[in-house]
Amino acid sequence: MADLIHGGDIEGYKLEYGREPMDFSANCNPLGIPKSVPPAIYEAALGADKYPDPLCRRLRTALSDKVGVPAAQILCGNGAADLIFRLSLARKPEKALVTAPTFAEYALALETAGCAVIRHTLFIEEGFALTESLLERITPDIDMLFICNPNNPTGLTAAPELLLNILDACEKSGILLVVDECFNGFLDEPDNHSLKNKLPDYDNLLILDAFTKLYGMAGVRLGYCMTKNARLLEDMRNAGQPWAVSSLAQAAGLAALKEDAYVSEARALIKAERAFMMSGLDRLGIKPLGGEANYIFFRSGVPSLVEKLRGKGILIRGCGNYAGLSEGYYRIAVRTHEENVRLIEALTLLCHS
Amino acid sequence: MADLIHGGDIEGYKLEYGREPMDFSANCNPLGIPKSVPPAIYEAALGADKYPDPLCRRLRTALSDKVGVPAAQILCGNGAADLIFRLSLARKPEKALVTAPTFAEYALALETAGCAVIRHTLFIEEGFALTESLLERITPDIDMLFICNPNNPTGLTAAPELLLNILDACEKSGILLVVDECFNGFLDEPDNHSLKNKLPDYDNLLILDAFTKLYGMAGVRLGYCMTKNARLLEDMRNAGQPWAVSSLAQAAGLAALKEDAYVSEARALIKAERAFMMSGLDRLGIKPLGGEANYIFFRSGVPSLVEKLRGKGILIRGCGNYAGLSEGYYRIAVRTHEENVRLIEALTLLCHS
Repeated sequence: MADLIHGGDIEGYKLEYGREPMDFSANCNPLGIPKSVPPAIYEAALGADKYPDPLCRRLRTALSDKVGVPAAQILCGNGAADLIFRLSLARKPEKALVTAPTFAEYALALETAGCAVIRHTLFIEEGFALTESLLERITPDIDMLFICNPNNPTGLTAAPELLLNILDACEKSGILLVVDECFNGFLDEPDNHSLKNKLPDYDNLLILDAFTKLYGMAGVRLGYCMTKNARLLEDMRNAGQPWAVSSLAQAAGLAALKEDAYVSEARALIKAERAFMMSGLDRLGIKPLGGEANYIFFRSGVPSLVEKLRGKGILIRGCGNYAGLSEGYYRIAVRTHEENVRLIEALTLLCHS
Repeated sequence: MADLIHGGDIEGYKLEYGREPMDFSANCNPLGIPKSVPPAIYEAALGADKYPDPLCRRLRTALSDKVGVPAAQILCGNGAADLIFRLSLARKPEKALVTAPTFAEYALALETAGCAVIRHTLFIEEGFALTESLLERITPDIDMLFICNPNNPTGLTAAPELLLNILDACEKSGILLVVDECFNGFLDEPDNHSLKNKLPDYDNLLILDAFTKLYGMAGVRLGYCMTKNARLLEDMRNAGQPWAVSSLAQAAGLAALKEDAYVSEARALIKAERAFMMSGLDRLGIKPLGGEANYIFFRSGVPSLVEKLRGKGILIRGCGNYAGLSEGYYRIAVRTHEENVRLIEALTLLCHS
């Protein structure tokens, strides 16, 4: 089997070391799964001999109430990753544009659908920011553009005005703009960085979101997307099996959507701990390159940093396998204070040795 | 949204009638989910803020012990349906052969991958049996052949000698033979109808199976496939997201694999109740066309049978939307004795009115 390209491989660590690691390599809510979710999953499990609702009717209604988008404009999937593959297969674009670096599944899904993937490189000289230079790449030969906002692994948001200009440029060139807002909920001001309020006006806009990160439900598998383009949603629904979202995930989502206090608490924790980690890194002479959400992106000259931390029971994400990056770039999740202290301590030892 | 083409739409019934139906339209284990599975799912839910193991390492090891196939030759999926789509995308066949009727997802997945689907019609004059005439269709222009054994919706197995001849013919013509054994466990003699023991000898054989039906876990989503063709498995793993199988499903599968008594009990129940329903249908002048597994296929001239039973709170599967069939064909699951009595009573009223 090929190497795993993403973070979060707890099982691999456990098989090697026989114990649980401290995981900073995946970016999920440090509060863990919300308290009401496991009992809701158990309740659903008792009746899980039946097929799940292929249309996720109750969940989509609840999501609609929560996010203010009509239920008919929402499609749920087996995590956002499922929807990324469905989207590529539903549209089979000939040419698509993604940034480099960004989340690897966009290109993998596009290539599975036979699409040529063009990469718009983000430069360290510009702090890995998305700049107006992207507008020049938006030409009618492109079918689809993926923007991850905030971007993974950089943790940087696109400037709101630039994003609107990109959306308009895509509309003019007949390009579908796919904005992945999976980490939006961890920003200090999520609404300022979401294009949700533009959905009613743009047929060429699709927004991806998930329960994975914000609600600490990566193991449950539940994502969704939103667009007013009914034909696109229908094509995506047909570009895969009808029962992608388990009954367990649907029940989990319904419970999670009521967890407002949990989300507020997580956002406050992330804000405080992000500052704590930034200053901790700063004291080590590591200048973070980005970190507006629940993870921090940085560069370090310490050799074999991933392996050394792994030996101490700590997983972080080496970013050398992201297109557009090389060895020496890292991403760490913002976790609980206790965990963050442990990571900074471990980094301190490594940087001073 | 388009019509749902499969059975088991409990949610649609509940939205219309405000209560649970008695469901004979999906073919899952009538004993419900095994007792040890919901607690195992709950336990996994507590840690489901972490990503699932993308390689399903523990589950594949346990499956390997159970089915006697090396773990490296097993790939797990989000239900067998996920694997059907991955297979089509991994191989992108130009031309594939399926029977008519059979499970609809084969053709849907193949068409999503841009494949031309050729249908080998099974005729009522031959009792919908698979016959040697299929061998004439096995020509080198075909890339892939799907056989559902026992077939859905007919409930008929292929003759073991014929199946071996098909396997050999496929090997000679360079065709991948995909055998869906999802209902095998409900047969009176499962081993006589499985090609599992041929896996070591044929690089062109892939077997699909799932926890969905045998372990009453349709809502959990867990399937797997087996082949000695390592390259094919690896391509399938890459033809979709890495985290298709939730942590909940992996834990559920591990628990289910220990439920031997549950499976024996279900098999005995199905055998007795299948006979009960066959004789009940017989008394109504309905001659079943097939039913070797946990469902019975029949034809009836009673108009609007599905709708009339639905009005009485009973769902059955009208088979008019299967390629190769027309209105008047039906499939009913074999359920618990109490449920089966209720169905036969309802049918009796309708046939005599």
